[in-house]
Amino acid sequence: MNDRVAVSIEPGEPRRVRPPRRVNDVAVNLAHGSGGRAMRDLIEDVFVSAFDNPTLAALEDQAVFALADLAARGDRLAFTTDSYVVDPLFFPGGDIGTLAVSGTVNDLAVCGATPLYLSCAVVIEEGLAVDVLRRVAASMQRIALEAGVAIVTGDTKVVERGCADKLFVNTAGIGVVRRDVSISARNARPGDVVIVNGFLGDHGAAILVARQQLALDADIKSDCCPLNGLIAAMLDVCPRIHCLRDATRGGVATVLNEFAQSSRVRIRLDETALPLREPVQGACEILGLDPLYLANEGKLVAVVPADAAQQVLTAMRAHPAGREAAVIGTVEACDEGAEEGLVVMQTTFGGQRIVDMLVGEQLPRIC
Amino acid sequence: MNDRVAVSIEPGEPRRVRPPRRVNDVAVNLAHGSGGRAMRDLIEDVFVSAFDNPTLAALEDQAVFALADLAARGDRLAFTTDSYVVDPLFFPGGDIGTLAVSGTVNDLAVCGATPLYLSCAVVIEEGLAVDVLRRVAASMQRIALEAGVAIVTGDTKVVERGCADKLFVNTAGIGVVRRDVSISARNARPGDVVIVNGFLGDHGAAILVARQQLALDADIKSDCCPLNGLIAAMLDVCPRIHCLRDATRGGVATVLNEFAQSSRVRIRLDETALPLREPVQGACEILGLDPLYLANEGKLVAVVPADAAQQVLTAMRAHPAGREAAVIGTVEACDEGAEEGLVVMQTTFGGQRIVDMLVGEQLPRIC
Repeated sequence: MNDRVAVSIEPGEPRRVRPPRRVNDVAVNLAHGSGGRAMRDLIEDVFVSAFDNPTLAALEDQAVFALADLAARGDRLAFTTDSYVVDPLFFPGGDIGTLAVSGTVNDLAVCGATPLYLSCAVVIEEGLAVDVLRRVAASMQRIALEAGVAIVTGDTKVVERGCADKLFVNTAGIGVVRRDVSISARNARPGDVVIVNGFLGDHGAAILVARQQLALDADIKSDCCPLNGLIAAMLDVCPRIHCLRDATRGGVATVLNEFAQSSRVRIRLDETALPLREPVQGACEILGLDPLYLANEGKLVAVVPADAAQQVLTAMRAHPAGREAAVIGTVEACDEGAEEGLVVMQTTFGGQRIVDMLVGEQLPRIC
Repeated sequence: MNDRVAVSIEPGEPRRVRPPRRVNDVAVNLAHGSGGRAMRDLIEDVFVSAFDNPTLAALEDQAVFALADLAARGDRLAFTTDSYVVDPLFFPGGDIGTLAVSGTVNDLAVCGATPLYLSCAVVIEEGLAVDVLRRVAASMQRIALEAGVAIVTGDTKVVERGCADKLFVNTAGIGVVRRDVSISARNARPGDVVIVNGFLGDHGAAILVARQQLALDADIKSDCCPLNGLIAAMLDVCPRIHCLRDATRGGVATVLNEFAQSSRVRIRLDETALPLREPVQGACEILGLDPLYLANEGKLVAVVPADAAQQVLTAMRAHPAGREAAVIGTVEACDEGAEEGLVVMQTTFGGQRIVDMLVGEQLPRIC
């Protein structure tokens, strides 16, 4: 008996005994995107083996689930997509794979959804090492397990050398929104409190370090992580969270501007309350960057009713992804005739300045 | 009163009166992928205005739907994704936009799902003309309307010049599977009949012509189109369709090999029955290509019980996407000890040959 060949027999549906296909090529070539045998081998070797679930392994062109199982978790379906083009592929604290799963999980979680299923579509530049793909797939699966989601359907395209930069990953995701939750950028109300779950700008700074645009010895790592566990803990103590969004490209400043504009309120930040790591702050000063605009990949901004703020903060600080949670500002009404949708910062030196939306490009290909 | 400014007031939720934002740049630059104001303007100008639905227009990071509305259409959810990297972006009979919507609609429809919602994630090369994006978005919306789906969520990334080839589009899709349907590549049974809905290889040949790899005056157009209407008509007369797949990369030959292997049967094709346009056949002969492996973007392969074949054919021929539907083969049992999963073709000259899976790359970036 050959113990290297795993055979799984489903009742009533005997499968052919076949050793798992293995890609012998060191690098991806155009045949791996052809739709033929080479593509199937690459998918089985790299993705099916890493993501390890029967829905994907069936290699149908779509994943199918019982609606009744979804309805048991809530009353609304959430659907989102993101492409990841980060450069470099690997950076301190993560890689394009950890990013692709965390980012899409977080986009589902911030509307109050329990993330359930993800897709994975890759565009590969001819010549990419197959081992790079294997590492990225392993990262994706590690975060998927941490977040409790399954990667159930996918697509593989290969383009000629010079027609893409190594690897782009798209993940779409579906989840089910909890019954008692109603979160929207339009829900901020005067008197509400603005909370973040920890240090700002770590991801943006880590990418700068990885690109060697910044010669720093400091230990700066991306904060890339799934936030659905933290958000579930917050919603458990306060289903009435008004606004919630992860602060990725454009940073916390952009999220707050979107909340202020959509809710037609003014948001006042307290500069002394912003949680910043010393090396990130230092890097920003050297480069003339504002940490409020730096990308995060494991940070959320929440707007909650003032009477629930302490409970939410306590719940957040009890979770590994929320230990440094802090109140950073408050929501105010707009005076009659005053400009709506502004974000204003009370500075360390007692002045105040307007925190506008990001204009122009701060860092390309940050995620 | 300024009649160029459209104001939509929802009951109880007055919106700010704001002229629609318009991108003034001729070409996309890195700021359009920054997460800031330039990105928002591009999204509003190009995508929100083209796709024209309130879910997308809310610009939340995810689309949300009532599960009850989905459950009214069936009992299972289908979820799929595909990236499109076709070169050139525009070709006779379609473009990357028509492809991106048709392809994902078809991947949902072939499992018996009614396609409902699509995402649209673009990776844009810096320097792409904004007007090219507008044309692609318009094509996507035209096919979405034809197929009865809405594009409800999206993502925009921009990479530096030379780091992508003009434009890649990913669409993920969700649909609901009809209650009475059970389609799988494993369901082919001896005695079943193999049907296609029309001429083979048109898309692959059209891309060759568009790349000017083939100097032909012949009028060859891509067959790119959504097949969900045709498939609904087929399922109405025969909910018991055994296997169904669209024959894209790898062509009809690859789909049949997947059916034969998954169902552990042999499939016998009749070469004289293959529907081929004269110019496509001519082009294949000149270039040494086999039309059975050429990509299609509006062709399906169905395996149906013999007693339902005539009904299915009649229903197909009554639909614009199935006028040239034809029986091209039959399913046979494997003799004891014989190799499983083979596709065999009875040739025009009375011989027979094995039609294997595509090995190697026939045409890169066909979709």
